[in-house]
Amino acid sequence: MAKGNIQMTIIQIDNYGPWTLCLGPRREHDLQVLQSELYADLQRLFFSKGGLVFCARFDNMLAITNGIDIDTHREIQESICRRYPITISMGIGAGATAREAQEKATRALQSYGSSQSEERYKILAVSEESLKGDENLVQIAHIDVEKATLMLTDRVSAYEALFTLLRVHGVLAEKFLEKKALVFFIGGDNFMVISNGLTRQDYVKILRRVSGRESLRFKAGIGIACNAIEALKLANESLGKVRRAELKESICILSEQEEDR
Amino acid sequence: MAKGNIQMTIIQIDNYGPWTLCLGPRREHDLQVLQSELYADLQRLFFSKGGLVFCARFDNMLAITNGIDIDTHREIQESICRRYPITISMGIGAGATAREAQEKATRALQSYGSSQSEERYKILAVSEESLKGDENLVQIAHIDVEKATLMLTDRVSAYEALFTLLRVHGVLAEKFLEKKALVFFIGGDNFMVISNGLTRQDYVKILRRVSGRESLRFKAGIGIACNAIEALKLANESLGKVRRAELKESICILSEQEEDR
Amino acid sequence: MAKGNIQMTIIQIDNYGPWTLCLGPRREHDLQVLQSELYADLQRLFFSKGGLVFCARFDNMLAITNGIDIDTHREIQESICRRYPITISMGIGAGATAREAQEKATRALQSYGSSQSEERYKILAVSEESLKGDENLVQIAHIDVEKATLMLTDRVSAYEALFTLLRVHGVLAEKFLEKKALVFFIGGDNFMVISNGLTRQDYVKILRRVSGRESLRFKAGIGIACNAIEALKLANESLGKVRRAELKESICILSEQEEDR
Amino acid sequence: MAKGNIQMTIIQIDNYGPWTLCLGPRREHDLQVLQSELYADLQRLFFSKGGLVFCARFDNMLAITNGIDIDTHREIQESICRRYPITISMGIGAGATAREAQEKATRALQSYGSSQSEERYKILAVSEESLKGDENLVQIAHIDVEKATLMLTDRVSAYEALFTLLRVHGVLAEKFLEKKALVFFIGGDNFMVISNGLTRQDYVKILRRVSGRESLRFKAGIGIACNAIEALKLANESLGKVRRAELKESICILSEQEEDR
Repeated sequence: MAKGNIQMTIIQIDNYGPWTLCLGPRREHDLQVLQSELYADLQRLFFSKGGLVFCARFDNMLAITNGIDIDTHREIQESICRRYPITISMGIGAGATAREAQEKATRALQSYGSSQSEERYKILAVSEESLKGDENLVQIAHIDVEKATLMLTDRVSAYEALFTLLRVHGVLAEKFLEKKALVFFIGGDNFMVISNGLTRQDYVKILRRVSGRESLRFKAGIGIACNAIEALKLANESLGKVRRAELKESICILSEQEEDR
Repeated sequence: MAKGNIQMTIIQIDNYGPWTLCLGPRREHDLQVLQSELYADLQRLFFSKGGLVFCARFDNMLAITNGIDIDTHREIQESICRRYPITISMGIGAGATAREAQEKATRALQSYGSSQSEERYKILAVSEESLKGDENLVQIAHIDVEKATLMLTDRVSAYEALFTLLRVHGVLAEKFLEKKALVFFIGGDNFMVISNGLTRQDYVKILRRVSGRESLRFKAGIGIACNAIEALKLANESLGKVRRAELKESICILSEQEEDR
Repeated sequence: MAKGNIQMTIIQIDNYGPWTLCLGPRREHDLQVLQSELYADLQRLFFSKGGLVFCARFDNMLAITNGIDIDTHREIQESICRRYPITISMGIGAGATAREAQEKATRALQSYGSSQSEERYKILAVSEESLKGDENLVQIAHIDVEKATLMLTDRVSAYEALFTLLRVHGVLAEKFLEKKALVFFIGGDNFMVISNGLTRQDYVKILRRVSGRESLRFKAGIGIACNAIEALKLANESLGKVRRAELKESICILSEQEEDR
Repeated sequence: MAKGNIQMTIIQIDNYGPWTLCLGPRREHDLQVLQSELYADLQRLFFSKGGLVFCARFDNMLAITNGIDIDTHREIQESICRRYPITISMGIGAGATAREAQEKATRALQSYGSSQSEERYKILAVSEESLKGDENLVQIAHIDVEKATLMLTDRVSAYEALFTLLRVHGVLAEKFLEKKALVFFIGGDNFMVISNGLTRQDYVKILRRVSGRESLRFKAGIGIACNAIEALKLANESLGKVRRAELKESICILSEQEEDR
């Protein structure tokens, strides 16, 4: 298996809760718009450097940032702080698994004080030296529900479909977390798993177990590369192969080094 | 208890899945940006007419639309279709509970054909005549986790906090759905429940049960009014009262008609 | 001729110059993005209430705001201040001509102090009582250059085309200002004139003189209604008639009260 | 004087005019929002690669793109085409002056057919091989009006101030174009001049002549570097020096190679 580490960044709005309260009771709609645009903005900024952001809790986001150095993080932070009424702090960490990387990233940031402290803002915390070029490795799985349109969207009510996907997210997240991989819902019937270190057998086992519980079947395309964008591109190509039924299995893995293992 | 119905609208991107596939394997980042901006745009458009949108699955969103007629829906639909590479369809329904309203809305839209049909696009489906002014009633609960910063954000890793909230969302959604109310996560540690027909006792029971399971406590502010924006404003004022500890209980209800019942 | 007044609003970023300086020398790109998004946002907010915004100098914008009261201005102001790192102030004025209306609006705001004062921010200045419903009148002309694609876009260099339009804008603005009407460039080869009080003969004379100077011919569609959105819709319909060569003249006027005078 | 060429890109919305017509008479507000967001998006995309975009006519924009190769142009084009209801074409050219570079860029694109042809879309036209690294040179002047707040914003009406700046833009553009430099208005009282090849003496002469005509005085900060972002940063630093009155003259030039010539 390929060797290398994943680098993750936590992006946190500073002192967000107290700030929202001072906006008065008619604030909610503006906050929803603000949060969505902040996420779209960060996605653009990190993507242009090879990274990928997940909206997570919106006031706390997580990004895969292999190949993005501290200065670039600082530029992104500055650009956001110039254009929004809030500031953001960031923590950067790396590790053999996504779970470990984001734990280090979070701890690095937490060491500067509470997210609701007025004194702590615009922090850029680094848990250790950033990765060298040849140590970068990102594994991403793009998972979707088989026949989701037929089984959910065209069949049950909109909320029932959402509720089913919420439950699926919960079970997927639980099972993958045992393997130190992180699952994010990215819209529709699509999940993305940051899954450094997992083998084909790991995916087979987990998806089989979740299928059993939920009476839904899954397809998974996995990509392995030196940064998030390239890994995701391979994951999408893998999923395309599975969708076009070029494979017996519902799982396909593509790596920058080797083809379809 | 106040009498009246809630009106809900399902907003669906037409033939989204097949369209995304034709964008090639490097599409994901652009889709995330597109989805976020579409949501922010719809939120602005519906808000300006007294409505409120939840991003749900992003390709399928749900909105509270009391007081928003068919022509206004059509204008919003046109505005989106002019500015995005995709079109949207909508279904409108009303009922005594949020669950019923969105079921009718979904069925009205589903009756026009599959969401992945190339022939079905820019539909505006209405399950029945829109509500008269005096029949509108929206009940919204704004729920947050007590001491979420202390217990989650400043203490555990970013993903662990997200995972906890995902689990809480699942349990809240399950319990509220039994009462025909719908729970949405709106960022941070905040949930919004569309809860027409629920009594104070219903909230107390549900929150107590979820607290027991998750070792977390909740605060809830409930607002009742003739449209989403006014109900949400009252819900935020209610939650403000609870936060400022002006009340013995962690639940407060404000209604347009009567004060703090 | 129809009787009534136009209401205009100046929207000014507070203390913008000094603020931009503190952002450091790498600020420019962020400011361009900020300004564009602020304009797009204000356009959405005012449009949803029947108004129309012109980006003007970007840090100072002008809007037609007939039918939009002070409370709604305040809500728009609050929504912007919640989502941007800057605040805005506004001045509202009304008059028989656009020139007079914006002069009153500007003076009302200027009376609160300098735009670069740190003490003056989030002002909402009103030059007088807002208009009653039956006093509202907006006249808008949508003017474009005949065969602009053939003569400019497909023929000369991009900057030469821009330079020609800049010169045309200058001459149009000068001539219309003599009649107390305001010309804005709105992209492509399109100009919008807020032209309360002008007669068909006024347009004929002005466009003939500008044509003479610039060797370009113009088409104009004029709309007259009780607010900006309806007037603009009629202006576009008028221009459509001219474009489809349904008329001998290159000018067409449509009014809410009467057809094609 | 430093040797090297400037690379410019024309960005053109394909078949925009005919498309807008099919949107109906209520289209205008949506077009303004679309154009602003498209510009903001392109600004972000080019900036992340060291470039800078000017909104120009909105349906035709111009960018400084030194150091940005054809593949990156293609990626930017794809990203826009995925997220907007329109497509864009681009032409790339280089030359010793900005005027020449954009002429070549425009001609390259024009050779593919009319901007209003339905057959011509998503073109990426290149006038010649892209520049080698050591041939890149960008000279930018950031010019502002002395005491614009005192003389214009706080003193005359909003439209009068705009009209003055429009006239100033016209005169500046005329004079600089004689020297093959391009002037863009970037908001407030700020102009940007792409001015490869100009000497200090050229600026002194032009600004003196324009001052004479308009009774306004100007400050200019000039930056010279290998791409737009670095040149602009130096231009802003130069302007900062002039503003802080560290210099006798109202013109300052900073170059990557040498300090304040």
